[in-house]
Amino acid sequence: MVAAEPKATGKTIRARCRDGSLGTQTSGLAPGYVQANIVILPAAQANHFQTFCQRNPRPCPLLAMSPEPGVPTLPELGDDIDIRIDLPKYRVWRDGIAAEQVADISELWQPDWTAFALGCSFSFEEALLDAGIEIRNITEGVNVPMYITQIPCASAGPFAGNMVVSMRPMAPSDAIRAIQICSRFPSVHGAPVHLGDPSQIGIADLSRPDFGAAVSVKKSEIPLFWACGVTPQVALQAAKLPLAVTHEPGHMLVTDLKNTDLAIF
Amino acid sequence: MVAAEPKATGKTIRARCRDGSLGTQTSGLAPGYVQANIVILPAAQANHFQTFCQRNPRPCPLLAMSPEPGVPTLPELGDDIDIRIDLPKYRVWRDGIAAEQVADISELWQPDWTAFALGCSFSFEEALLDAGIEIRNITEGVNVPMYITQIPCASAGPFAGNMVVSMRPMAPSDAIRAIQICSRFPSVHGAPVHLGDPSQIGIADLSRPDFGAAVSVKKSEIPLFWACGVTPQVALQAAKLPLAVTHEPGHMLVTDLKNTDLAIF
Repeated sequence: MVAAEPKATGKTIRARCRDGSLGTQTSGLAPGYVQANIVILPAAQANHFQTFCQRNPRPCPLLAMSPEPGVPTLPELGDDIDIRIDLPKYRVWRDGIAAEQVADISELWQPDWTAFALGCSFSFEEALLDAGIEIRNITEGVNVPMYITQIPCASAGPFAGNMVVSMRPMAPSDAIRAIQICSRFPSVHGAPVHLGDPSQIGIADLSRPDFGAAVSVKKSEIPLFWACGVTPQVALQAAKLPLAVTHEPGHMLVTDLKNTDLAIF
Repeated sequence: MVAAEPKATGKTIRARCRDGSLGTQTSGLAPGYVQANIVILPAAQANHFQTFCQRNPRPCPLLAMSPEPGVPTLPELGDDIDIRIDLPKYRVWRDGIAAEQVADISELWQPDWTAFALGCSFSFEEALLDAGIEIRNITEGVNVPMYITQIPCASAGPFAGNMVVSMRPMAPSDAIRAIQICSRFPSVHGAPVHLGDPSQIGIADLSRPDFGAAVSVKKSEIPLFWACGVTPQVALQAAKLPLAVTHEPGHMLVTDLKNTDLAIF
């Protein structure tokens, strides 16, 4: 007889990040728990980045930030979070270039650093799946296709650029239901920002995403476009900061919040 | 100096119906007040029609019905409503054919008749206009285009048929906002039932509506289709009842409810 594996939670996933036994992408881990994009910046840029998030809440929904510069906790997302060791993998940016992948940033951490946690599409994808709506990138086992649009973000300090969107094709009736469901979750990108003709937002070819992988779109389907959490990474890249840290794409912070906690009605 | 006309309400409009001074369509009268489609049936068909509404809530959202057969009131919609005299114009159906237009059905009223009040698109159109969304049929000054689809209604007794939908074209961003806004109003048809390709629901040509008038659709726009209150009239026609009464199209019951009262969140 095989003992059932205890159900994974935000806490158990973070424990595995701390002891170095995880290291993988977090998609599908600890179902029901909110996962978050992470951006870590020195004091000189942190206020600008906070303003960038406030001005662009659709692509950059700010869930939580460090209580003080240099304090590596995120108490709103979990009472024991240490953002220096609780992710499976980090990306270190130098002069706007992804320079290193590391499993721990304890050595790098500086007394003026601030961590930002931004909502992630995993939360609304779970709500859509629960409603019986197919998500093509999940069906096809690939990363969601993402595109740099011609929709400009409002800039703040060195942070600027166009909005990145993710695309999920759906039958019209599912598209309407998906808009309703996602409207309940403004803190994880909310409703789509566009649907239908990709060229209206500056996307020339759906089969050539800027990030992720292309998915099949049936003739009877409509593409839906959501503001995407890759937007701040593109802004970060453009800002060419001497030093910054983010999660490695797909390797998110798994929190103690439940996705259902984020529903506004 | 001209005295300001007192603001019209459900009560003042109904008073003008009673004294015979109105007689016109009610679109745009008493802004903010709920207007309702009316169907009046003898006992033999009333239960079937109530079931038809319960089974098809999108096209037939039942707001209220007579408290007892033969009682011509609708207390949920206004404490002094007399449904025999409170509409500007009635349509009398004989054997499924629109036989007469009358201003008063006091003489026709029978002790076994039941009146049904169904939600009307005027309520959500007001909410859309308030949100700054253009409604093409209003801009172009015509009745909204309506189409008989291939979406079957669930039947009940003699009442059966396909769903009728109304169409309003919008830019994609307005379409997303309209779905959000209309989702707040399930008792007045709610969110659209379809968007995009008309042929998917059996509409061959948008420029040839079955009822109402065609409106222009820009290349950059997506057509949105709402379940329509003409559906029960088509079912009524098909049922070929010896005698039934409805409002004359566009000549609605103006109630004491406010449109904002119907919002579920």
